[in-house]
Amino acid sequence: MDQVIDFINVNRDRYVEELKQYLAIPSISALPQHAADVRRAAEWTGDALRAGGMTDVRLIETPGNPVVYGEWLGAPGKPTILFYGHYDVQPVDPLDLWTTPPFEASVRDGEIYARGAADDKGQVFMHIKAVEAYMQKAGALPLNMKFFIEGEEEVGSVHLDEFVRAHKQQLAADVVVISDSPMFDRGVPSICYGLRGLVYFQLDVRGTKTDLHSGSFGGAVANPAFVLAQVLAQMKDRGGRVKIPGFYDDVRPLSEAERAEWRKLPFNETRYRKELGAPRLFGEKGYSTLERVWARPTFEVNGLLSGFTGEGAKTVLPAVAMAKVSMRLVPDQHPDRIAQLFEAYVKKVCPPTVELKVTRMHGGKPWMTEFDNKYVRAAGRAIQQGFGQTPVFNREGGSIPVVSTFQEELGLPSVLFGVGLPDENAHAPNEKLDLGNFHNGIIASAYLYREIADA
Amino acid sequence: MDQVIDFINVNRDRYVEELKQYLAIPSISALPQHAADVRRAAEWTGDALRAGGMTDVRLIETPGNPVVYGEWLGAPGKPTILFYGHYDVQPVDPLDLWTTPPFEASVRDGEIYARGAADDKGQVFMHIKAVEAYMQKAGALPLNMKFFIEGEEEVGSVHLDEFVRAHKQQLAADVVVISDSPMFDRGVPSICYGLRGLVYFQLDVRGTKTDLHSGSFGGAVANPAFVLAQVLAQMKDRGGRVKIPGFYDDVRPLSEAERAEWRKLPFNETRYRKELGAPRLFGEKGYSTLERVWARPTFEVNGLLSGFTGEGAKTVLPAVAMAKVSMRLVPDQHPDRIAQLFEAYVKKVCPPTVELKVTRMHGGKPWMTEFDNKYVRAAGRAIQQGFGQTPVFNREGGSIPVVSTFQEELGLPSVLFGVGLPDENAHAPNEKLDLGNFHNGIIASAYLYREIADA
Repeated sequence: MDQVIDFINVNRDRYVEELKQYLAIPSISALPQHAADVRRAAEWTGDALRAGGMTDVRLIETPGNPVVYGEWLGAPGKPTILFYGHYDVQPVDPLDLWTTPPFEASVRDGEIYARGAADDKGQVFMHIKAVEAYMQKAGALPLNMKFFIEGEEEVGSVHLDEFVRAHKQQLAADVVVISDSPMFDRGVPSICYGLRGLVYFQLDVRGTKTDLHSGSFGGAVANPAFVLAQVLAQMKDRGGRVKIPGFYDDVRPLSEAERAEWRKLPFNETRYRKELGAPRLFGEKGYSTLERVWARPTFEVNGLLSGFTGEGAKTVLPAVAMAKVSMRLVPDQHPDRIAQLFEAYVKKVCPPTVELKVTRMHGGKPWMTEFDNKYVRAAGRAIQQGFGQTPVFNREGGSIPVVSTFQEELGLPSVLFGVGLPDENAHAPNEKLDLGNFHNGIIASAYLYREIADA
Repeated sequence: MDQVIDFINVNRDRYVEELKQYLAIPSISALPQHAADVRRAAEWTGDALRAGGMTDVRLIETPGNPVVYGEWLGAPGKPTILFYGHYDVQPVDPLDLWTTPPFEASVRDGEIYARGAADDKGQVFMHIKAVEAYMQKAGALPLNMKFFIEGEEEVGSVHLDEFVRAHKQQLAADVVVISDSPMFDRGVPSICYGLRGLVYFQLDVRGTKTDLHSGSFGGAVANPAFVLAQVLAQMKDRGGRVKIPGFYDDVRPLSEAERAEWRKLPFNETRYRKELGAPRLFGEKGYSTLERVWARPTFEVNGLLSGFTGEGAKTVLPAVAMAKVSMRLVPDQHPDRIAQLFEAYVKKVCPPTVELKVTRMHGGKPWMTEFDNKYVRAAGRAIQQGFGQTPVFNREGGSIPVVSTFQEELGLPSVLFGVGLPDENAHAPNEKLDLGNFHNGIIASAYLYREIADA
């Protein structure tokens, strides 16, 4: 083990250089024009797995982007980890807010800046390098491993459920390991035991056939941008509570025990607010900030577009207005049920003066596990060894829909073993990864395999 | 006179070819990158005036775009027309909705399609050609004329008031003629005796320093796009009435006589609705469609922008959201007073969870004249002669702020002598001008000069 850790320490700079190459590929799955880049990232991932010592490495086609698969099954009798991650990344706009180009990784103050640095290429690469270290120094892993790296996580893992169902045999394992979530805070490593789900919609409102002159026609017809604002405004009350009828029906109440645990966490509201640059924190009444983000559902507007948006003034009465909206879900809300409630409500509140088109984009189920299972405990020990600190146990506000799929389709528990930081701009300009955490993460990953092997 | 009219009839095709050149210049005053094109359009206008026989033609600089001036004062003792128009045009987005490129004029079914065709290059050019016909066949005009063609009408004529005040002597005249408004309907020529005013704002809402992941942070802070929707939704009630306190205080009530006149106009609501492609007509309760557009103020959203607006789904919590909004005003509302009321109200309804920036863009006063003055009657006779039909008298929903300026600064009445059509997409894709009306408009303009000379 010492040799493995030494090898990781010695190769620190090389890892960063290799990661830069990975981050240079603009594998944006949401934008069709990047389809070739997405494939290139899949191939790069496969090559890296092969170089790391995995066998049977290949791209498995789906109706969308390929899955990268690789395995090492040289430890009969030992447990098998199914490692899940993704090689696709979020879009980068607004591009002008990036300090350095999103696909030319730049190291500043011990952090590497690039789209995908934290979410998720950097964390996938961490495991590939931990595997490589074992192979180089021990010629073997302490357990069996299967890598399953997909390319559609940022567009809702649209073909993943189907893929998992069709490859149950191949994906059979004892535990899923995922490194795609942040730790609780800088210097506070954590194990995540709960995630929110998601439903995402596009709303298109049409008022008239074409844009009109706001003088000649203003007052004659409904303004679709105004109607859209009216419709959106009816989704939440002034206290931040979602107004969609039935929305909260299936929400599992927070237990007093859990709330008490969270109150002990080193969370500084003032520092948090200042880091975000918000005039004040705000959300559903009756819940703390952590409770709102981790354990309460939300309604968010993700995008708005209508009419004239350039510099200056144009007196146009827009023909159409568009909004992207999404809801984060918590146990035991179901995305299909919430989608139905939303669609019914939005159609009800939209006036008949416009045409409304409601398009469901994607979604995922919320997830929660008990944290007293042996794999979660093993992960806790690995974090302790890699970071020199006892981890805290937290939930996360984001969504990794595949976690539910692994539970339902393969009967597998998941260990969320993330080393990102909450301020690493995962879906925003200037995404970054702390290189100290990246390095400790490789060491912790190496320990994780041994701890699970012995669990 | 017959020779002048014959000349106009014979040169019909040439006029269209020349107009195409004028329309080819993308003189978009709202976009700084078109500054050189704006100047080129000014020079083209000056050249056309010179070729038409006007004297002392020159560009007069302003702090913004130049004014094109030209005069012919060879009819001492006769009245002087101050002809006002503009050579700048509206932006063209969304470009993909244009059937043919906005700056490559295309003739289809007797209409010429291009940005500026109706608003206002086509109508300015109509007068230049009427002047040219007189000069060619009679060697003189029947009265004195001054052309005053500006380049900032589409950005609120920002330097015009100052210019008029500084050039009172030079602009001295008996009556202003403006051809920048549509006739009532195809086959229903009209004289416009009222215009709405305008105030235009940009609202910028900031929630946080950067865009955030809607999972990791959704629920912690206010969503600026949602807050913007909430703020906008509070500007009008469900009946279409503006909720800004004091907004209607100075609105001159519609007289029963005026309402009775308008009810006689050949206005078909069903056809109008179908032409606009609206599911239904909508506006302030208690007023007919014409009343709402001509004589009632409005609040409109002209543009919206926030977060992710591309194809697909991006789970972003936007940092900022922007809206362009404007209000059309009617006599006796004052733009400054309404701007103050709006600013106070929008700041009051915006919650303290975001930063709000309110930027006033431009505006103009509403205007109305009595239609029994001799110049309006002269214009009626000219329309009768050019179009073979008695005109109706109407108001217009749009704004020509300069009309108030001419009244206040120069003490001049204005005659609104427009030959556009209401469906000519003045500020929208596929702007066009009916070539029959363009041609009859040149003839009517020639008659107008004679009628005013004899008035």
